[in-house]
Amino acid sequence: MTTAKKRILLLTTGGTIASAPSSEGLVPSIDSGNIASVITSISSNYIISAKDILHLDSSNIQPEEWRIIARHIAENVNSYDGIVVTHGTDTMAYTASVLSFMLRNLPIPVVLTGSQLPLLNPLTDAVENMRSAFDMAASGVAGLFVAFNRKIILGTRAVKVRTTGFNAFESVNAPYAATIDSAGLNINYDIIPKTDGEFYLDETLENSVFLIKLTPGLNPEIFDVLLNMNYKGIVIEAFGAGGLHFIHRDLVSKLQKIVDHGISVVVCSQCLYERSDFSIYQTGKKVLEKGAIPGYDMTTEAAVTKLIWALGKTHSCDEIRKIFSHNYVGEIHLTD
Amino acid sequence: MTTAKKRILLLTTGGTIASAPSSEGLVPSIDSGNIASVITSISSNYIISAKDILHLDSSNIQPEEWRIIARHIAENVNSYDGIVVTHGTDTMAYTASVLSFMLRNLPIPVVLTGSQLPLLNPLTDAVENMRSAFDMAASGVAGLFVAFNRKIILGTRAVKVRTTGFNAFESVNAPYAATIDSAGLNINYDIIPKTDGEFYLDETLENSVFLIKLTPGLNPEIFDVLLNMNYKGIVIEAFGAGGLHFIHRDLVSKLQKIVDHGISVVVCSQCLYERSDFSIYQTGKKVLEKGAIPGYDMTTEAAVTKLIWALGKTHSCDEIRKIFSHNYVGEIHLTD
Repeated sequence: MTTAKKRILLLTTGGTIASAPSSEGLVPSIDSGNIASVITSISSNYIISAKDILHLDSSNIQPEEWRIIARHIAENVNSYDGIVVTHGTDTMAYTASVLSFMLRNLPIPVVLTGSQLPLLNPLTDAVENMRSAFDMAASGVAGLFVAFNRKIILGTRAVKVRTTGFNAFESVNAPYAATIDSAGLNINYDIIPKTDGEFYLDETLENSVFLIKLTPGLNPEIFDVLLNMNYKGIVIEAFGAGGLHFIHRDLVSKLQKIVDHGISVVVCSQCLYERSDFSIYQTGKKVLEKGAIPGYDMTTEAAVTKLIWALGKTHSCDEIRKIFSHNYVGEIHLTD
Repeated sequence: MTTAKKRILLLTTGGTIASAPSSEGLVPSIDSGNIASVITSISSNYIISAKDILHLDSSNIQPEEWRIIARHIAENVNSYDGIVVTHGTDTMAYTASVLSFMLRNLPIPVVLTGSQLPLLNPLTDAVENMRSAFDMAASGVAGLFVAFNRKIILGTRAVKVRTTGFNAFESVNAPYAATIDSAGLNINYDIIPKTDGEFYLDETLENSVFLIKLTPGLNPEIFDVLLNMNYKGIVIEAFGAGGLHFIHRDLVSKLQKIVDHGISVVVCSQCLYERSDFSIYQTGKKVLEKGAIPGYDMTTEAAVTKLIWALGKTHSCDEIRKIFSHNYVGEIHLTD
């Protein structure tokens, strides 16, 4: 059997994988040709084109860079069988989520990967991660994925949960999109999002979104301040399934006030795993009554980036609520 | 062999364990006598005194309540062999952490527990959790612990990671303080904090601490606003091992500004597991140079409550830095 070689585009953005020591600590400095050579030296299955698009530690990757990465992908989806994007791990989950929303109806696999140790470190995990990413990129399974530690995670479900371990990412509230073992790449087709039309780039973002992780005793005044700062959206990581305090300091009434001012407020949980649910407790029910939008089982990374993306389309709270109750790319699993 | 019965004080504060349905959802309504009867009906090993001290959903437990709970414990440490505190799960990790700091040199076991389903629900986990909590309270092993799902977790290491699962808490960056199996309670003595003097209640807290979980593109102006709002301490959940963005929007310079104004800034990671480390990357090194205090491997709950407690003693950044580099109750594991 002859399998046609797959045309894969490698886009590099910096990150640990491309880093080398400097007087200030590790900084991104290795180019895309060197990163591509890892795979060309291992396998002749791919015809690889490589392009440096950014040279950044991912802590510096922000909405401006999301647009740059998204445009490079959009320009190339019709010329390649798959695209691999190397990226620092620290904000990879945010980038993977936002790209999942911006790149509507992706026709090919787009796979983000990186590593916890630089490519040139003898113990590096970069080579394993690149193997996984390229195999997924050549799989013909369209969508936006993160490849890490021999697991393929849906872009909207990846969360970086470990600062140093090679098993840095988990697939939160969703099974892996694929696993890798001696049988090769085992795709979990049930969770691969379906497309519903032609590919297009949906790149208008509204960056004025603030994330608040509640702490006991948080002074509700912060919401007045965010209102004055012209934030258009707020994501609250509430306690447990969705609690906010309302004695001593009444966050619930304050929530009402900012919702009345037309700010879209999405409430999810500060617990890493499992869904928020505002229907169980009095503290949660009060939140829904005040007009907050439930975050269901979304990761915080998905909730924040979905709000940034949704506010790029509309500032209407009702429209935002509709967008949040729709599952676009596997980011929510609606059970009620 | 005759074992003397242990005198255990049960303090109840509300939470799911004490909740019953109401027109507004579940609200705390069952009293301490009913909760104590769970254990008296199972075992005659204990002489139990029970006292209702609060009737709150734990989303409403704040520094005012921390003081109430701490005082009730402090008044009773010399009259009992152990104390069990039932508490809602949503903020139990914050309460467990702050009590660990406030109750200096605890001479007896103090064990927080609760449940994911109400005591009166036929599937409740309350009974199992109460068994574990009472056994730990009777163990003679002094310290502040959380008992949940047959595991005993050090108070400063507990994090609620699941909104609905019975396995709601994890011991983050530390082994369990004890596990439970057919051999009974297996204490891990290596991680039980040592006391270094007489017991006392250290209850002065400074509540003006703000937690910021970074998102890509966060506008640094928020720090000016927190300065104007007279916050005395800020905990930043940075990216990965400790990254902050400094292109487009310069969080690093802003950090310098607020540190120069005498605000204590503690930086930890938004990754749930493993330690922050600012020595590896350029983005991290810049943060340390600006005077931020490293959070090492502390949980966010421990970092926030330790800062609230430390600022109750001093507003000097140098003193706060010293307090943060000292391990009081197992909250940090210093390797460098």
